[in-house]
Amino acid sequence: MIAIEKLKKKNQEGKFICVGLDTDIDKIPVHLKGMENPVFEFNKQIIEACSDSAAAFKLNFAFYERDGYNGLQTLEKTLTLIPDDLLKIADAKRGDIGNTSQMYSKAILENLNFDSITVNPYMGEDSVSPFFKNKDKLIFILALTSNPGALDFEKLKLEDGSYLFQKVIQKVNQWNTNRNCGIVFGATKTEELQNNIKSFFELPVLLPGIGAQGGSLEDVVMTFKKNGRKDFLINVSRGIIYKSTNQDFAGAAQEELSNLNKIIAELLNR
Amino acid sequence: MIAIEKLKKKNQEGKFICVGLDTDIDKIPVHLKGMENPVFEFNKQIIEACSDSAAAFKLNFAFYERDGYNGLQTLEKTLTLIPDDLLKIADAKRGDIGNTSQMYSKAILENLNFDSITVNPYMGEDSVSPFFKNKDKLIFILALTSNPGALDFEKLKLEDGSYLFQKVIQKVNQWNTNRNCGIVFGATKTEELQNNIKSFFELPVLLPGIGAQGGSLEDVVMTFKKNGRKDFLINVSRGIIYKSTNQDFAGAAQEELSNLNKIIAELLNR
Repeated sequence: MIAIEKLKKKNQEGKFICVGLDTDIDKIPVHLKGMENPVFEFNKQIIEACSDSAAAFKLNFAFYERDGYNGLQTLEKTLTLIPDDLLKIADAKRGDIGNTSQMYSKAILENLNFDSITVNPYMGEDSVSPFFKNKDKLIFILALTSNPGALDFEKLKLEDGSYLFQKVIQKVNQWNTNRNCGIVFGATKTEELQNNIKSFFELPVLLPGIGAQGGSLEDVVMTFKKNGRKDFLINVSRGIIYKSTNQDFAGAAQEELSNLNKIIAELLNR
Repeated sequence: MIAIEKLKKKNQEGKFICVGLDTDIDKIPVHLKGMENPVFEFNKQIIEACSDSAAAFKLNFAFYERDGYNGLQTLEKTLTLIPDDLLKIADAKRGDIGNTSQMYSKAILENLNFDSITVNPYMGEDSVSPFFKNKDKLIFILALTSNPGALDFEKLKLEDGSYLFQKVIQKVNQWNTNRNCGIVFGATKTEELQNNIKSFFELPVLLPGIGAQGGSLEDVVMTFKKNGRKDFLINVSRGIIYKSTNQDFAGAAQEELSNLNKIIAELLNR
């Protein structure tokens, strides 16, 4: 199934949460640390516990690259555990001149066979278009991120009065001829989402910033609902995978995920 | 020796060329292809031929990540061949929220022990500051790139009449409290360099875009000279490493590099 269809199907099943596997050896439960590959064991238990209720898993590349070959091996092994009907998102934030982005695309979307990747638009169209060429994949372009630094450039006002991130969204809509583009839009401030959601048109949205970073789940869901939109993914990383740091961490993660799904269902059925 | 001192020393020796190891298995000489690791063998011969005349080597991560573990191994083995007095630059264009950039920084500047890295500023200060914390390293932040897509966002005009890339340069100057920041500034159009060089202040500059991408070596060197600046690196990748695609490729690369050094020396001594 192509990536955007996977997303639609999960969204139709009422699943909107992307579980972020930002797995940090320093934060996982102590009882795993004696194992041969503690990070893999942690991911395995989280994936087994959460696959029935999640819409997607997102692997943050930095957390694996940190461990060199072993990290890359853990990433690859982790991918094999994720059921095929869930979106596998590479949170890699790549972007370079055309021939180089082409190589990153081959590495991540073809060789590793991720369904989806996050990319950085700073260098413009030819730095991201090599990713779009993979029609079956879903490319999330950074528009507005959820970190404090979003103020430095993303929220700069342009000559025409719009913000840089709004220009990015406009361009992504133009580039979306294969209908396989989406955007990353931080959910830390409800107003920003409310004020911009109409400009997203058909672009699926990956929303970081809920939970640890302060965004409100209810506000996000209600904003999409009011706008008749059902194609979004709310990323939760630390709030799910480190819900408990004891032996029951996988169960606690599953329970937290189920709670979030219930809250979302109630909001959508209100 | 800390990174910025390595750069100064090479510049004082009249060496300004950064050799880009964008090594593509599809482009290297046929006679290498039967070897156990053709990309490594190619890099080895280029490094041996060019180390005396180059200021730096830049490894484009995409070209290694494309080959998974093997690629990462080739990258690590290649690094061991570069003499310690030359800058080793990771062309990785990373940048993410703080805790994630911290991991990339650990992976590339600590574990792989690169002297320098290229980073993408789109997400703002907290996405790049984890790299700056490595005081001994040199962090090149993308300002203006040499690709056509630079028009899409980097050259957008802001409310105050300046361009986005100029705002990036201004911010990098503010962030440079450890005096270990530099910028990437595409050399495709001489005017742009002439019009902006005063705003760089003390920031060392990595310039792509000479050769294959159309920039003029003479214009770049003369612009730096006129401004009393001697701290820059001109990146040349394809123009050196693929100067010949026959058995004599390493000699041809060395010869091209020497020619470039001679041209630069003549310009500086004019």
